[in-house]
Amino acid sequence: MNQKDIYVKNMPLSEAKEKWQKALQEINFSDSAATTEIAVEQALGQITGAPVFAAHSSPAYNAAAMDGIAVHFADLASASDAAPVRLTEKQFTPVNTGNNLPLGFDAVVMIEDVHYINEHEVELAIPATPWQHVRTIGEDIVATELILPVGHRIRPIDQGAMLATGVTKIVIKTAPQITVIPTGSELIQPGTTPAPGQIIEFNSRILAGYLNEWGAVAKGAAPVTDDKDKLRAAISDAAKRNDIVIMNAGASAGTRDYTSTVLAELGEVIVHGVAIKPGKPVILAIVDTTPVIGLPGYPVSAILTMRLFVHEMIYSYMDMQKPVTAKTKALMSRPIHSSMGQDEFVRITLGQVGDELMATPAGKGAGAVMSLVRADGLLTLAAGSEGVGAGEEVEIELLRPLTEIQSTLVAIGSHDNIIDVLANLLHKGSNAIRISSAHVGSMGGIMAIKRGEAHFAGSHLLDEKTGEYNISFIKRFLADIPLQLINLCYRQQGLIVAKGNPHGISGFQDLADGNLSFINRQNGAGTRLLTDKTLKDLTLSPANINGYDHEEYTHMSVAASIANGSVDCGMGILAAANALQLDFVPVAEERYDLIIPEKFLDDPKLMSLLDLICNSPEFKQLVNNLGGYSLRDSGKTMYRQ
Amino acid sequence: MNQKDIYVKNMPLSEAKEKWQKALQEINFSDSAATTEIAVEQALGQITGAPVFAAHSSPAYNAAAMDGIAVHFADLASASDAAPVRLTEKQFTPVNTGNNLPLGFDAVVMIEDVHYINEHEVELAIPATPWQHVRTIGEDIVATELILPVGHRIRPIDQGAMLATGVTKIVIKTAPQITVIPTGSELIQPGTTPAPGQIIEFNSRILAGYLNEWGAVAKGAAPVTDDKDKLRAAISDAAKRNDIVIMNAGASAGTRDYTSTVLAELGEVIVHGVAIKPGKPVILAIVDTTPVIGLPGYPVSAILTMRLFVHEMIYSYMDMQKPVTAKTKALMSRPIHSSMGQDEFVRITLGQVGDELMATPAGKGAGAVMSLVRADGLLTLAAGSEGVGAGEEVEIELLRPLTEIQSTLVAIGSHDNIIDVLANLLHKGSNAIRISSAHVGSMGGIMAIKRGEAHFAGSHLLDEKTGEYNISFIKRFLADIPLQLINLCYRQQGLIVAKGNPHGISGFQDLADGNLSFINRQNGAGTRLLTDKTLKDLTLSPANINGYDHEEYTHMSVAASIANGSVDCGMGILAAANALQLDFVPVAEERYDLIIPEKFLDDPKLMSLLDLICNSPEFKQLVNNLGGYSLRDSGKTMYRQ
Repeated sequence: MNQKDIYVKNMPLSEAKEKWQKALQEINFSDSAATTEIAVEQALGQITGAPVFAAHSSPAYNAAAMDGIAVHFADLASASDAAPVRLTEKQFTPVNTGNNLPLGFDAVVMIEDVHYINEHEVELAIPATPWQHVRTIGEDIVATELILPVGHRIRPIDQGAMLATGVTKIVIKTAPQITVIPTGSELIQPGTTPAPGQIIEFNSRILAGYLNEWGAVAKGAAPVTDDKDKLRAAISDAAKRNDIVIMNAGASAGTRDYTSTVLAELGEVIVHGVAIKPGKPVILAIVDTTPVIGLPGYPVSAILTMRLFVHEMIYSYMDMQKPVTAKTKALMSRPIHSSMGQDEFVRITLGQVGDELMATPAGKGAGAVMSLVRADGLLTLAAGSEGVGAGEEVEIELLRPLTEIQSTLVAIGSHDNIIDVLANLLHKGSNAIRISSAHVGSMGGIMAIKRGEAHFAGSHLLDEKTGEYNISFIKRFLADIPLQLINLCYRQQGLIVAKGNPHGISGFQDLADGNLSFINRQNGAGTRLLTDKTLKDLTLSPANINGYDHEEYTHMSVAASIANGSVDCGMGILAAANALQLDFVPVAEERYDLIIPEKFLDDPKLMSLLDLICNSPEFKQLVNNLGGYSLRDSGKTMYRQ
Repeated sequence: MNQKDIYVKNMPLSEAKEKWQKALQEINFSDSAATTEIAVEQALGQITGAPVFAAHSSPAYNAAAMDGIAVHFADLASASDAAPVRLTEKQFTPVNTGNNLPLGFDAVVMIEDVHYINEHEVELAIPATPWQHVRTIGEDIVATELILPVGHRIRPIDQGAMLATGVTKIVIKTAPQITVIPTGSELIQPGTTPAPGQIIEFNSRILAGYLNEWGAVAKGAAPVTDDKDKLRAAISDAAKRNDIVIMNAGASAGTRDYTSTVLAELGEVIVHGVAIKPGKPVILAIVDTTPVIGLPGYPVSAILTMRLFVHEMIYSYMDMQKPVTAKTKALMSRPIHSSMGQDEFVRITLGQVGDELMATPAGKGAGAVMSLVRADGLLTLAAGSEGVGAGEEVEIELLRPLTEIQSTLVAIGSHDNIIDVLANLLHKGSNAIRISSAHVGSMGGIMAIKRGEAHFAGSHLLDEKTGEYNISFIKRFLADIPLQLINLCYRQQGLIVAKGNPHGISGFQDLADGNLSFINRQNGAGTRLLTDKTLKDLTLSPANINGYDHEEYTHMSVAASIANGSVDCGMGILAAANALQLDFVPVAEERYDLIIPEKFLDDPKLMSLLDLICNSPEFKQLVNNLGGYSLRDSGKTMYRQ
């Protein structure tokens, strides 16, 4: 019988932060970075640990700024075109750019303005101003003046300025050393196929990657199994050798979660459980004088919690200001209801759809790594908030540059692997376009177009009555929106069968005697409509199909049921069969179109997409390589309104 | 006799870019990066060389998303508080988060909602929906679907997504290899004190640093002296071993500039001389199939020219879009006249002064590395433009994040090393403030306040008539601006004398007999006013001072004249003496105040500055360590209007 760890509290975020700050103050964590001396040449990207002052002035002497002759400006006071002045050998001396101005001279006349009478005499027709074309000593910086303050991240130009002013060694701060310890007996190494219940351990790589980007020196440690003694030894050892220790639980199941117990034995647990979503079970503890942070096991929770608590600590340790995260205003495309009582961090996809930047909630699962790969930003719903209404302006913390978001085409709807082919072909060269693709089914795509969330939607909705694709659904749900329906492809649907097709299934007719089992899609799914039409065309009665009433909700669930042997076949697309290395028996062709609002048809990004579809031989070749497609109407407008 | 390289043209930038593009096309430079396979764990920051598709689905099986029991949702259809449903052993099975959902079950009820009757029987009062609290197979991503397109820079989360979906090796693009060859016999290595005419070679470090930041693999080569054969051998060898070669001339003096001649012998010079400022003498050439770029010698010209031509090439080589440079709108604080006929790149200091972001031209010299360290952005004046008027809105390409600029105090005026002390004390901790400091003299500071360019100005202008500091100048030039004049310090001015004070000078009285030579500051300088007042107080006649009419324009020029032995002494500040390791004889104390417009006094940044000045023992200690200061009135308001 499972039991939740009864010690997990639900402390408000502000209170947790305050308690943690106080605990960090008690161990003098802030500004505790050590310093070390290194060569300026090695210092790119490092943080100054002491102010850097110029050792020489720059220029170190009065230097000619032009090729020409050095003169005394006073000698030329009366020079003019009408009455040029002649200078003799002692009154001028040739100089090249960068030369030290010989003693006593106080201006340079550039070579273009010098008329040589002979080698020893020149004639000049323009007066000179004091120090013209001369870089005077210390003009750029004077020795002893400040080049860089303490706490400055060193850029290439800073290295140049230091070297130019005679500084070759500087003091830098030592970044905090962090170890990330994965825990959990269920963890296996990447590259192994997980058995049911096993989890590939990749969190420590992601977490260390972010910590390094934030300026720490972080690395992942070997996983520790669910064994109290081993855990105790690992934490105790890591706390001695590091400035911060990160524990990353495997699955967060209470009975196996010893981290908080062990931390309470070894040191002090300051906070266990914060009212945030995702991330609630976070542990903040101090062992000796080392902060130890227990992150939740799910990757998305772990990353977001680490952003919340650890990012700031790295800058605090270095006594620096945390860089401000870029933010943008956007309009919510649909309402979000908050989980009252906790601060919630919502993954957001952004789309520059016409003049508006539209924010759409992306995947929700705490384990959904891809949702964070796809996410463009984060929306914070404060604990007291009731949520956000559709059309409301929100502030989004950006996870990728706004310019990248602005060169992104947002595709929401039914997914097809051809969209991935297009995404790759567009993501090239100096005008690279990114496709952000959310897979929510054809009806989901139609609703996304309605809400103005997407530039285009992939759809393959068959109207049982007319036998037509998509049009009647557009008329019903998108009547107000001028749009074009442009064909992308025809694709094979078929019966997904076990590897090698052991029952030799060749089509629905083989299911008519009820000996083989079938798994169906839910009512309303495009594939269900196609199944019903196919049965009708074959004059087969659904009542005779064994499993017709057994419904699954996705292509992949159908494929999985076949892969695990619980049924013999089910209707789906080739890609689903390929994904689980199953076999596929084509039974029908369906049309897959793109719904594109009229107003985006002259968007250069969309024009590039359509140009590819219509004109690229490479596109056609790549699609043919996939198999199961016909591009005979590709790029053709099937309907417009 | 010097001669300009007659081959340097003045080609318009657009034409130069077009010719260069064409030449690069002919060698198929774009998209020519090789690819190589590496482990995902090593791939952080690398660029995908091929699309990455999921090898497994994620989740790879239907997984419990909560701790609880797996059920058949249909069994609970009628469950309610009034009529709870009992499930027996075969109807449910306990699951932990992450567990594979046992075959046949299609929902999870979380443990909090489960009432155990005994170990074998549970009672449930809420109906379940299909697949509730289950992460269905492929929910996050389906095997064969796209994880990352080609040309994507890999982030930690991307590594996680690849590892989670069974991808452990990927193809990446190989970044272009670039060598930067410094040329010029005058170059010496950093760490050596330059003799007159010698130049410390640091450009290759700065240039390689930027190239690496832009994604290349760049390194500096050993300098090549001004010898045609050596140059020919170096270029020929480098072109064979690299994807791009950068030549960086030493001083650009025509007679020693063999680069273009040698490049014309080895390959084809496409462009030599572009109508840009700085950067005009740039050379763009192809040797065999390798682009060779000859950059001007001055560091600022070299960097700006490299940004203009080479930055883009790196992305083109990788077949990627060059990241868009962050830009901002700002108001010009003073007019800039353009050098008609050439595209000009003006270094800009930005200041968030009240509600406006004010843009002020920073230092101009092509050799002024510090001007680029200090610069916040670049303004492009197109060849056709006549310039920009004061108050006009301009677009600035940012060289540091806008948020950093917004937490910057802009100080323009006379410089004192105490400003550097303050800059260091403020540049710490979570609310770090940066001081951007331009050294333009007291009158320059007053004009900057008048134009709204600065938050405060350091000033030490003595009124000969009243003996008062700064106030009469404020009344004359800043009458309209409510402000406070707040004392920063009193500082010693004195006679700067040679090391060891060989003539035993103790004050101006020792100059009265005309045997020792003096060097004066120009009319209007604060130090000149102080000199005149001191002479008057001592009843010494300027006519008796040998060199009174010999004027220099900065403290450092005065100090340099003494250092090179051309005069015996001059009036200046202790810091100038220290900068050239000279001795200093104090003769008078002057007041150094900060002019602060009233409207900034409640700016938190300025409040922090004043708090430091008034209350920080560390500040007082550091200033005392500098020597030559009194802080008796520090922080006191000397005048307000």
